[in-house]
Amino acid sequence: MRISDRIDEVRSIIGRVRGNGDSVGLVPTMGALHEGHSCLIRRARQTDDFVVVSIFINPIQFGPGEDLEAYPRQLQEDAAVAEELGADLIFAPTAEEMYPPDFTTYVEVGELTDKLCGALRPGHFRGVTTVVSKLFNIVSPDRAYFGQKDYQQLLVIERMTRDLDMPVEIVACPTVREADGLAVASRNKYLTPEQRAAAPAIYQALQKGAEAVKSGASAKEAEEMVAAQIENEPLLELQYARAVDPRTLAEPGSAGPPMLLAVAAFAGDTRLIDNIVVEE
Amino acid sequence: MRISDRIDEVRSIIGRVRGNGDSVGLVPTMGALHEGHSCLIRRARQTDDFVVVSIFINPIQFGPGEDLEAYPRQLQEDAAVAEELGADLIFAPTAEEMYPPDFTTYVEVGELTDKLCGALRPGHFRGVTTVVSKLFNIVSPDRAYFGQKDYQQLLVIERMTRDLDMPVEIVACPTVREADGLAVASRNKYLTPEQRAAAPAIYQALQKGAEAVKSGASAKEAEEMVAAQIENEPLLELQYARAVDPRTLAEPGSAGPPMLLAVAAFAGDTRLIDNIVVEE
Repeated sequence: MRISDRIDEVRSIIGRVRGNGDSVGLVPTMGALHEGHSCLIRRARQTDDFVVVSIFINPIQFGPGEDLEAYPRQLQEDAAVAEELGADLIFAPTAEEMYPPDFTTYVEVGELTDKLCGALRPGHFRGVTTVVSKLFNIVSPDRAYFGQKDYQQLLVIERMTRDLDMPVEIVACPTVREADGLAVASRNKYLTPEQRAAAPAIYQALQKGAEAVKSGASAKEAEEMVAAQIENEPLLELQYARAVDPRTLAEPGSAGPPMLLAVAAFAGDTRLIDNIVVEE
Repeated sequence: MRISDRIDEVRSIIGRVRGNGDSVGLVPTMGALHEGHSCLIRRARQTDDFVVVSIFINPIQFGPGEDLEAYPRQLQEDAAVAEELGADLIFAPTAEEMYPPDFTTYVEVGELTDKLCGALRPGHFRGVTTVVSKLFNIVSPDRAYFGQKDYQQLLVIERMTRDLDMPVEIVACPTVREADGLAVASRNKYLTPEQRAAAPAIYQALQKGAEAVKSGASAKEAEEMVAAQIENEPLLELQYARAVDPRTLAEPGSAGPPMLLAVAAFAGDTRLIDNIVVEE
């Protein structure tokens, strides 16, 4: 496995891979690799001939006061994990390599991004779609792999890819969970033992809400049920509990499935998100 | 030469071309092909193995009250011109093929686009960069060819390509002029004989301004000289005459070269633009 921090080097490696007629899979990450990422890398390994894992803590997707500085940085450890899983190349550029001083170009998806997390983190999704566009242009993957835990991000990237005719297939992988149901996430590292013990209440609340939706509950009823259960847990502070149309993230047209239940909550300073899609 | 209005068909044609190891050149146009476009197509023909000319009157780069409806449409004539010049493929999609009803993604270059024409045509350059991104993703050219007549557009596209790491080389071709100096443009068709006779005053004014800059004139002096000469022509209404840094489009750091002199003026309802770069 190779590790490169240079765009031109990655391009030349990928050029040779494509010259051999091999397919390329990209797993974009911010590092601090966990079982969710492993699942994406394994899936890429099964499908593509050459697997690239990008590790880049993208400054432009963090807002003021967010955890850019604190975000875990552990390239050596991440490289070992990726290699063990059969990745062929790690692309771990510096911020300077990705953003020259007079960088001024952004890719922005409208509508889908002003809801849920987008409403609370202005500029976040613009940062995500911009860096993913850059990674697609640098790596030119046949497929890119994203987790359903970040459901809104997945939807926004699918929309961008379709709207801009990017020649990349977006592969969605299911949320990976701890034994007690907590969605695996890099930020789980920040949790104290007490917060960690409280955190599974999010998924439990989502499950209850999903059962209700399956039985015909309206969006409003499901939201109130999920919110009440999370507010019951003193170590969690609910940011939002929403039940929306899984394709548009807007108000659902009717009660019952299909519905996306999505939650954001703080455990201390740590922001946790999770979701369940109740299929039709 | 083939003509296609379908994205998937173009992709599959280009896939075969690339499979043969051939290079691809793209000349993006809105049709109404004239000598400026011919020059771009010839240049592409000299350099690339397979030459694609796109013809698409891009609705999202026209503002309210601009000439979207009136813009000349003449696909048969354009196809004949492109074939004569050796183009291999015309891509002439419908607006529906390019923009699905829930299209919401835009590519936007900041700073460079809030000056000159960008200040007067809000959203124009966002429309240009978005459609050019789409064309690049559909055609995946090695090189794309743009005229220096649209200097700000060229600069904005170069910036976008660099910022987003698009694997495309931007080739700039000099402005083509009529014998009397008028920059060749599709909108020249709109001019009455009297307006057509008055229009060369724009280039004459730019040339005078350029001579002054070579002799050490400041931006302000050059602007006033260019403006005064155009305002002397009763059939032209000056929109702006600006002297700026050719790389940033901002106020130049000092008098004399390098400087971009840029003009927009109306002849009746017809908007004409032109520019001269005074090199260092």
